[in-house]
This record gives sequence, C-alpha cells and structure tokens, in this order.
Amino acid sequence: MASLKSRLDHSITPIALRSYLAEFISTFLFVFASVGAAMSSRKMMADAALPDPSSLAVTAMANAFALSAAVYIAANVSGGHVNPAVTFGMAVGGHITIPMAMFYWMAQMLASVMACLLLKTTTVGQQIPVHAIPSEMTGFGAAVLEGVMTFGLVYTVYASADPRRGAMGANMGPLAIGFIAGANVLASGPFTGGSMNPACSFGASLIGGSFKNQAVYWVGPLIGAAVAGIVYDNVVFPFQSPDSLRGVSDDGVGV
Amino acid sequence: MASLKSRLDHSITPIALRSYLAEFISTFLFVFASVGAAMSSRKMMADAALPDPSSLAVTAMANAFALSAAVYIAANVSGGHVNPAVTFGMAVGGHITIPMAMFYWMAQMLASVMACLLLKTTTVGQQIPVHAIPSEMTGFGAAVLEGVMTFGLVYTVYASADPRRGAMGANMGPLAIGFIAGANVLASGPFTGGSMNPACSFGASLIGGSFKNQAVYWVGPLIGAAVAGIVYDNVVFPFQSPDSLRGVSDDGVGV
Amino acid sequence: MASLKSRLDHSITPIALRSYLAEFISTFLFVFASVGAAMSSRKMMADAALPDPSSLAVTAMANAFALSAAVYIAANVSGGHVNPAVTFGMAVGGHITIPMAMFYWMAQMLASVMACLLLKTTTVGQQIPVHAIPSEMTGFGAAVLEGVMTFGLVYTVYASADPRRGAMGANMGPLAIGFIAGANVLASGPFTGGSMNPACSFGASLIGGSFKNQAVYWVGPLIGAAVAGIVYDNVVFPFQSPDSLRGVSDDGVGV
Amino acid sequence: MASLKSRLDHSITPIALRSYLAEFISTFLFVFASVGAAMSSRKMMADAALPDPSSLAVTAMANAFALSAAVYIAANVSGGHVNPAVTFGMAVGGHITIPMAMFYWMAQMLASVMACLLLKTTTVGQQIPVHAIPSEMTGFGAAVLEGVMTFGLVYTVYASADPRRGAMGANMGPLAIGFIAGANVLASGPFTGGSMNPACSFGASLIGGSFKNQAVYWVGPLIGAAVAGIVYDNVVFPFQSPDSLRGVSDDGVGV
Repeated sequence: MASLKSRLDHSITPIALRSYLAEFISTFLFVFASVGAAMSSRKMMADAALPDPSSLAVTAMANAFALSAAVYIAANVSGGHVNPAVTFGMAVGGHITIPMAMFYWMAQMLASVMACLLLKTTTVGQQIPVHAIPSEMTGFGAAVLEGVMTFGLVYTVYASADPRRGAMGANMGPLAIGFIAGANVLASGPFTGGSMNPACSFGASLIGGSFKNQAVYWVGPLIGAAVAGIVYDNVVFPFQSPDSLRGVSDDGVGV
Repeated sequence: MASLKSRLDHSITPIALRSYLAEFISTFLFVFASVGAAMSSRKMMADAALPDPSSLAVTAMANAFALSAAVYIAANVSGGHVNPAVTFGMAVGGHITIPMAMFYWMAQMLASVMACLLLKTTTVGQQIPVHAIPSEMTGFGAAVLEGVMTFGLVYTVYASADPRRGAMGANMGPLAIGFIAGANVLASGPFTGGSMNPACSFGASLIGGSFKNQAVYWVGPLIGAAVAGIVYDNVVFPFQSPDSLRGVSDDGVGV
Repeated sequence: MASLKSRLDHSITPIALRSYLAEFISTFLFVFASVGAAMSSRKMMADAALPDPSSLAVTAMANAFALSAAVYIAANVSGGHVNPAVTFGMAVGGHITIPMAMFYWMAQMLASVMACLLLKTTTVGQQIPVHAIPSEMTGFGAAVLEGVMTFGLVYTVYASADPRRGAMGANMGPLAIGFIAGANVLASGPFTGGSMNPACSFGASLIGGSFKNQAVYWVGPLIGAAVAGIVYDNVVFPFQSPDSLRGVSDDGVGV
Repeated sequence: MASLKSRLDHSITPIALRSYLAEFISTFLFVFASVGAAMSSRKMMADAALPDPSSLAVTAMANAFALSAAVYIAANVSGGHVNPAVTFGMAVGGHITIPMAMFYWMAQMLASVMACLLLKTTTVGQQIPVHAIPSEMTGFGAAVLEGVMTFGLVYTVYASADPRRGAMGANMGPLAIGFIAGANVLASGPFTGGSMNPACSFGASLIGGSFKNQAVYWVGPLIGAAVAGIVYDNVVFPFQSPDSLRGVSDDGVGV
C-alpha cells in the first residue's frame, strides 16, 4: 500500500494539479466548440428541416479546429488528452499512472458538463444536442464504428507524442489529431454523431437530459483506445523502452 | 512622471512605430476578410433567406484562415495581437506597457474602421453586417459567451508566445490561434456572431450605423482576456520570470 | 535469382512487416473517412436530391483531413504512401523495391476492402458509393483528369520526402499532401469523383458491387504517378543520388 | 548591354530553367484546382440556381488548399510564386531580375491556359467560369478590392520568404499564403471572384472566351503587389540588406 499511497501523493503535487487544470481548460474549450457548433447549425435551419451536409461540415470543422487548438495549448503541461478515451489508451500503455488517469477523467467530465451547462443557460431555450444513432442501426454496430474511429484518434495521439519522430511529431501533432477527429465526424455524423469522446457524450447527455445509447459512447471508444495503445507500443513500434513515449510533458508528470 | 515620460518616449521609437504599422496591416486584413465573408454570404442568398449553416461555415473559415495569416505576418514585429482584447490580456500580464498598448488599440481600431469603409464603398449598396444577438438572449449571457470564447483565444495566444514551448509554439502558434477563433465562430454564430474582437465589432458598428449591444463586445472580451492572462501566468505556468513570456518580438518591443 | 531471393527475404523482415501494417492502418483510416463522408452526405440529403456543393465540401474536407493524418502517422515507418499509385510512383523512381511495392499494394487493397465492408455492415441499408463519371464524359477524358490529379499528388509526395528540403519538408509534408488531394476532389467531384487512389476505388467497387469505369481509376493514376516520379527525379531535381530521396524512413526500409 | 546579355544568360541556365518548370507545374496545379472547383460547384447546382454560400466555400477551400500545396512544392526551386503579381512584387523589391521575372510570367501564363484547356476538353460541354463583377460595382472599385487583397497575399509571401523569421517562416509560410488567399476569396467571391492572380484570370478568359473586365484583374493585383513589396522592404522591415530576402531558393536562382 505504500506504493499506492506514494502514487496518490504523486497525483496531487502542484505539477499534477496543473495538469488537471490544463485538461479542464482544454476539454471545456473543445466541448464548448463541438456542442456549440451543433447547436448553431440547428438554430440556423428552418424548424422542420433535417440536418444537411452543410451542418455536418460546420460540426466537423468545429471538431477539427477546436481539438487541434485544445491539444496544442495543453500539450506540454498535461499531454493534451482532452478525452477520457485518450487518457485510457495512455494508461493501457503505461504512460500515465492509474490515479492520475482518474483525476484526468474527473477534470474532463467536469469540464464537459460545465461547457454544456454554459451553452444551455446562455442560449436561452436551445436544446443541448445528444449523440444518437438512427433507428436502423444496432448499438453494437454503432459501438464498433465509434471504436474504430477512436482507434484512429488514439493511434494518432501516440504517433504525435513519440519522441522518435523528432520535430515533425512535435510540430504537426496537434493538427493531425484534430484532422483525424474532423475526418471521422464527416464520415460518421448521421450514423453515430462521431463522438470518440465519452466526456463530450456524457456532458451533452447530462445537460440534454437523455442517456439513450450512452453505453455506445463509452464501450466503443474505450476498447478502440486500448487497442490503439497496444498495437502502437507492441506491434508497430515495439522496441521502445517504457520511458521513450510519454503522454505528458517533460516536467515528469504522469511517468 | 519621469517614468511616464520615458515610457511614452519608448512608445514612439522607430521599432515601436513599426509595431503599430504591423498591427494596422494585420488587423485591416483580418477585418476585411471576416466582415467581407459575412457580406459575401449575405449577397449570395436569396433576398428573404435567413443565414444557414453554409453561411456560418463561410464566415468561420474566413476568420480561421485570415486570423492565422494575420498573426503569422505580424508575429515577429508586434507579437501579432490583431485584437484589442489580446493586447489588453497582454497588458494585464505585464507583457506590454500601457502606453504601447494604447497605441496598439488605436492602430487596431483605425484599421478596422478603414477595412469596413473600404468594403462599404467598393461593394456598392451592400450593408456592413453588425454583430448582434437574438431576441431571446440577454446581453449578460451574450457577454459571458463572448468572454469565455475570448478567454480561449487569449489563452492560446499566451501559449503560442511562450518560449518554453520551443519550436512547437513558434511553428504552430498562428494556426492554433486562427483555429480556436474559427471554432468559436462556428459555436456562437447565430447567438453572438462570434466576435471576440472589440475592434472588429466597433468598426462594423461605426460603418454599419448601429451600436446596439456594443457593450457586449467590449465587456465580455476584455474580461475574458484578462482572466486568460492571469490564469496562464499565475496558475498554469506560475514559475516564469516576467521576461520569459513576451507578447512581442525579440527586438525588445513592448517589454 | 539469388538477387530476387534476397530481395524477397528483404521484404519479409520484421521492419518490412511493420511497414505493411502501417500502410494497412493508414489506408484503412483514410478510406473509412473518404468513403464514409460520401455516405454521410448521401444519408443527410432528401431522397430525390442530387449532390450539391455542400456535399462536395464534406467529401473534400474528409479527404484532406484524413489523408494528412494518415500520411503523418505512417510517415516514419512506411513512408506514408496510403495509395497504390504513390507506391507505384516511388517504385518507378527506384525508391522502393518491386517485391516490397507488391506487399504495399496488398496491404492497401486489403485495408480499403475492409474499410468499405465495415461501413457497409455497420450502417445498415446504406449503399457504398462507387466512383463514376457523368454520361457526357469519355473514359479517356476521365483517365486524363485522374492522371493529372495523381501527378500533382505524387509530385507533392516526392517533394515532401526530399531530405534536401530540410525541416520544411518534414514538417508540412503531410499537410501539403492532404491539401492537394482535397483541392483535387473539389475540382473534380462531379466529373470523376476525385479518386487518385486505385485502392479506394477498388474497395468501393468490390463492396458496392459495380466495376463500371474501374479501368479509369487504375490507368490514369498509375500513369500520372509514374510521370511525377520521372519528372521530379530527372528534370526538376536531377542531381540527386539514388539514396538522397526515400519513400520510406531512415530505418532502412524499402531502400 | 553587356549587363543585359549577362542577365539574359543568367536567365537560361539549367537552374533557371528548372525554376520556370517548377512555376509551370505549380501554377498548372493551382489553376486546375481553383477553376475546376468553380466548375464543380456550377455542375452540382440546379440549372437555374445562382451560386450560394456553399459554392463559395468550395471555391475558397480549393484556393486555400491548392495554393498552399503549390507554393510548398516549388518553394525551394523557384520561390513558389505561382502568380504573376507575386513575381512582379518580388521584382519591385529587387529579389528577382527583370528577365527572369519575364520567363516566370510566361511559364505562369502558359500553365494557366493549359490547365483551363484541359478542364474544357475533358469535362465535355462545361463552360470555363470567368472572373466577373456584379453590375452595381465599378471597375475601379473592383480593381481596388483586388489590389488590397493582392497586397495581403504578397505581403504574406514576403513575410514567409524572410530568413529573419527563422524556422517559423519556412515551416508555416506556404500555409499562411494559402490561407490568406482562401480568406480573401471568401470575402470577395460575389464581388470580384477573388482572383488576386492575373494568370488565372487570363487563362480562364482566354479559354472561356470573355475578356470583359480583364483590366481589373491586372491593374489591381499588380499595383497591390508593388505596394506590398515596397512597404515590407522599406517600412516594416527597413534594415535588411538586398541579399537578406529572396524570393527564390538558396541555389542562387534569381539573386
């Protein structure tokens, strides 16, 4: 238990606390833009109109732009996870301790709920859009789609955090992460909503008042993230030492 | 008063004057694209049509693309503020002196007014679109939204100007700044217009002839910018010396 | 024949096998996003509606974003071809051996088929969209268009893999590759579909059940890719030694 | 006259000839995407429909994406002008000799004409769209708009080619150039078409069969480009020696 206690102590140092704050800020900004863009589209369409490709473009661009920026600003503090599935994928690979991962999750969930609450209260009378799947699809199929897309997202996070990639990884990493997320939203918008982020789905569900299909947005992404971490560390780049890939900064956080 | 005088002298050196010119050029180009894109959308829609998601996409892309480029071209001269709220946030953190900040503001305001005037006179008979809020929203709610979005923008500016981020900060900074602005426009278009920039709102209001809700676009962004500067300097990255973060270039401007 | 055997042996080393896996993963993620985005657009339009510019924007953004990310994550393992035409263009220039190129092709084709199969089975009742040309166009004209566009794509791949370009090549390469692909989709969407990728066209055709005009998407891109490799290596940058440009990483793969 | 002869000799060295070829290839790819995207939009709209914001988004994205890639691939050979106005702006600043600039122009014009010819012949029965201005605008106003936008473009080209900006200039330069062009297209689409490029306007006019308002697309951009070069070299960054800014590569071309 000494080990557990020391790990917990390690999770509440000033440096660790700043990581949680960085995750909170980045996740808040990302969920605000992602959910807000879906609300903007809805508000700009006629009452009876169904979402069309231009509203999908709006949502996908918001995801791509906001995730790139959110990862960028947190990258050298917390690693820029901005997503419980990414944190889970990093924990599976041993790049963040379990206690720290749990604090990351709490920061991310709280940020998402608060972003949705802000949108709900300021845009008077607007509904918070909840991720959903069309009637003909199965929950299993939707979870598979979300899992495959999250695999792509977390695999890209691993690649961008890999110091062996040199300047290219560090420079273009946040862009690649935002771009794969945006591309996946474009591919899956009318099918699953393209969440890949349990915190975002949870916050929207809590404030939007519907937890239908919520399991889809947890089971799929978490499994996809774990597979991405295992494949990257053990198959594609197997020779690295545990220290050579870090989900977090050089400050020693999360190692 | 010697101190004040020396500060004023410092604000009118050739290097400082070039900073103001750089801010003028960048702000002019940004406001031209941002306001112009809203006018283009309006012109391309049928007379009675309301803005739809595709017009939101046009405006947001113009903001993201133009702000990235505008920050990029001014980054190593004036710091690439392009926005009085960013300048205010930098002044709160002590990264630019008050007299210089005032000259920055003047350059930004003048640039915005002239960009709107150019659009008004060349596109004969077109109206300059003014930022506005829908009837169901309160001015307070709109100011909160603008404040939160400006917080995200100024926080990203702080992160990109932080020399401790190394090459990553310098390389991707202008992109991240443009992207967070674009994402926020997508999230808030039909609610507040997604200004985050008092100069842009002021120029459009002056030439467009309506100052309704103008306070929303000053109070929100300025408070959001100040909070971003305080949080970044004192909470997330508290250990830096005053010299380690500069809103402006290595030429010694604005320190 | 000793040479052939040694080449084959070289093609099944652990490092080579990882290259094939990297190509499989990147091509899978790219085809998933590209074909998925076309399906999303279709699903979001009214039953009788024809594709409009907003659906073209959706498809092109998915291509640009997903190809940038897919090239980025594979760049330092397999060179990030993600496309049999790119592999062919690299083989023409001698930057990858023929046996390895054949394994690349197999990985790319299999990935494309599996991505389309996943989309078909999870999005119940949706059709896989197949690249096609309008009735007034000739197959020859379409092949020329696809060839010219693939020339642009492969030329950009060559430029970004050229070590003489320094940090700029390495940093912005995947972006430039994704951007030229996205631009070409915007230019050719209603004419040829903007494939530039035989694997993507083949996978969609196999799962979508129509091989009409399939030759267009093989002959055009392969010829365009070969011309790009020849022009880049012999005309624009003629002085390089065979080792100075590699389609793959510094690990020695594919030389 | 010896000087003129030596300058002409300097303009037909193998290195210079490769610069012209690089300009030809990049301009061809850019005009193909830019004009092709306008044709795609037109083709995807109902017969009587007027262009709407989504078609503007398509054209602007094609400009931004294609120009970024076209500048990127030619940057270290010819400087990546891709535009007679940029070449003119570089000549005004003394960064390219007049004879070389004339060969650049020829390569750019020829490339544009051939790209439009290819589009015309392969997309059977489609019209080549020609840049035009609405009836209420004056030619003078349109030229001013094109001039201001070209000022922004050429100023960004100067900034990205400035070696004093270090890695940031080299890495993000082509992106910033593409982004300012895309933003300007969004701002001016229904007013002037957002050309900023006399070669593109000329090629479309020649193949499209209408030279109405052609002067607008030459006078405006050339004046805007010249002003940008003068302001950048003499006002914003006045202390540089003639050798410190080059429009072309380190190979010694164009100095």
